[in-house]
Amino acid sequence: MSGDRLPSWRETPARQAIVEFVAAVTGPGSAEFVPEPERIAVFDNDGTLWTEQPMYAQLAFALDRAADLGHPASLERLHAGGMPALVELVTLTHAGITTEEFEKACRTWLASARHPRSGRPYPAMVYQPMLELLTLLDDHGFSCWIFSGGGTDFMRAFASEVYGLPPHRVIGSVGATEFRDGPAGPELVKSAAIQVINDGPQKPGSIHTHIGRRPILAAGNTDGDLAMLQWTAASPHRTMQLVVQHTDAEREYAYDRDPILGSGTGAIHAAATEHNWTLIDMAADWSAIYPPVL
Amino acid sequence: MSGDRLPSWRETPARQAIVEFVAAVTGPGSAEFVPEPERIAVFDNDGTLWTEQPMYAQLAFALDRAADLGHPASLERLHAGGMPALVELVTLTHAGITTEEFEKACRTWLASARHPRSGRPYPAMVYQPMLELLTLLDDHGFSCWIFSGGGTDFMRAFASEVYGLPPHRVIGSVGATEFRDGPAGPELVKSAAIQVINDGPQKPGSIHTHIGRRPILAAGNTDGDLAMLQWTAASPHRTMQLVVQHTDAEREYAYDRDPILGSGTGAIHAAATEHNWTLIDMAADWSAIYPPVL
Repeated sequence: MSGDRLPSWRETPARQAIVEFVAAVTGPGSAEFVPEPERIAVFDNDGTLWTEQPMYAQLAFALDRAADLGHPASLERLHAGGMPALVELVTLTHAGITTEEFEKACRTWLASARHPRSGRPYPAMVYQPMLELLTLLDDHGFSCWIFSGGGTDFMRAFASEVYGLPPHRVIGSVGATEFRDGPAGPELVKSAAIQVINDGPQKPGSIHTHIGRRPILAAGNTDGDLAMLQWTAASPHRTMQLVVQHTDAEREYAYDRDPILGSGTGAIHAAATEHNWTLIDMAADWSAIYPPVL
Repeated sequence: MSGDRLPSWRETPARQAIVEFVAAVTGPGSAEFVPEPERIAVFDNDGTLWTEQPMYAQLAFALDRAADLGHPASLERLHAGGMPALVELVTLTHAGITTEEFEKACRTWLASARHPRSGRPYPAMVYQPMLELLTLLDDHGFSCWIFSGGGTDFMRAFASEVYGLPPHRVIGSVGATEFRDGPAGPELVKSAAIQVINDGPQKPGSIHTHIGRRPILAAGNTDGDLAMLQWTAASPHRTMQLVVQHTDAEREYAYDRDPILGSGTGAIHAAATEHNWTLIDMAADWSAIYPPVL
């Protein structure tokens, strides 16, 4: 029974739906069998695979790095400064650095920074039940991919180790790079010019470019993931859509119905209701939120 | 002996260099052993894996499709019209169509069109020795990828069957797509806006975005591939660079030294000489050029 592989999922309809779906599309005799190469599953990252409150980890990284570089910034000043302030912060902290130096900076930060409320390292803020789901799918011949709004290079600095995904399956927003002959040979220098903002209707486009096949499973938590779930739902195969709901103020955060923090979830929740997608209620469906810290 | 897997390669230094390199980076006891996930090989397509003369297959497709759409064009008029004429042709033949309709149009054309000199279907214009090399590398735990200047969607319409590569490993130039609710559900409509022209210094950037690892083998034939080969050569692992030379006027084409057709190969040939890269002389190194037609 593949449900045994989901120990942090309580015996609720969400878990049953997952177990039943996996059996239906992978069981050799199943009428809804999907061949392995077409078992593509796509996941949003922030708020779907790990905690995105009180701010995106990448934003915390940018603020810390700005301070390190002698230009302290804060969330408050960023809010006040709007888009120009954000562009300035990204330029300062994500550009004019080679891809290899940037990866090193991300790894150093990820190893030392701590989530403000839990005190955990950020890579330990991933959801244990979603790790179990990734493993279950991998064991059943699925290829799991991340399509998230965060920066590709930032996510890859931890995603391979934490999620067990090769870097080519971790896709986020992409900035332009400049190829040049550096002191130690050819190198790629990150620039502030954005090539792709991987959110909303861009996600299906990125999936087409990076995979070239339509997924049969998609998981997200905000309206920025809606197009990805709609695109998946239109596959000729049987499909599954998962919507993670942040309902657990004690163990994680409860902001889906918050008038400000939850303002970006109305459309995806409406679509989930309309199309009978699988809602994951963190408080009810998960017996554990985070992995044990080693 | 892995050389047995290369029956269309003559017993020349090029073949020996390939066989020796593969043994060195994959032999369990080898001092230059490279772990499987890092055995990345990248290939240009036009002129490296298949014939690009007398014109790119994708251009032949565009001209035929323009005629089908009631707007006949010709290579001569295209040359006379310069970039605006090319943009007009691409807009007419590659935009305003869903990705699924476009794939169908490509497949229909690929099944019926014939190469003007050989009379073969275009997918039969791939180089048999390179097919053998792809298979040899795959059998030795390499992941082979294509990074070419052609359109991603066009290449994927034949590359999976012909080269045995999953679509996510076939990367070319990319146009923007628009996600919309079509009559049969969500769809992606191709637009004429270019997101990435996958040539020259962009190739290392695309490799970084799509793979996230530095290759250890790269193959190309023109100056547009030089940055990709340089980027590969700077890996900390032992690497191999292959430069295909079009030297066979009888069986394929001989244009590398043609003042016009060969004008784009000076820099890569100079680099190959300087860095002792492996030159592939089609006339001398290959006993067969194309696969038997079934």
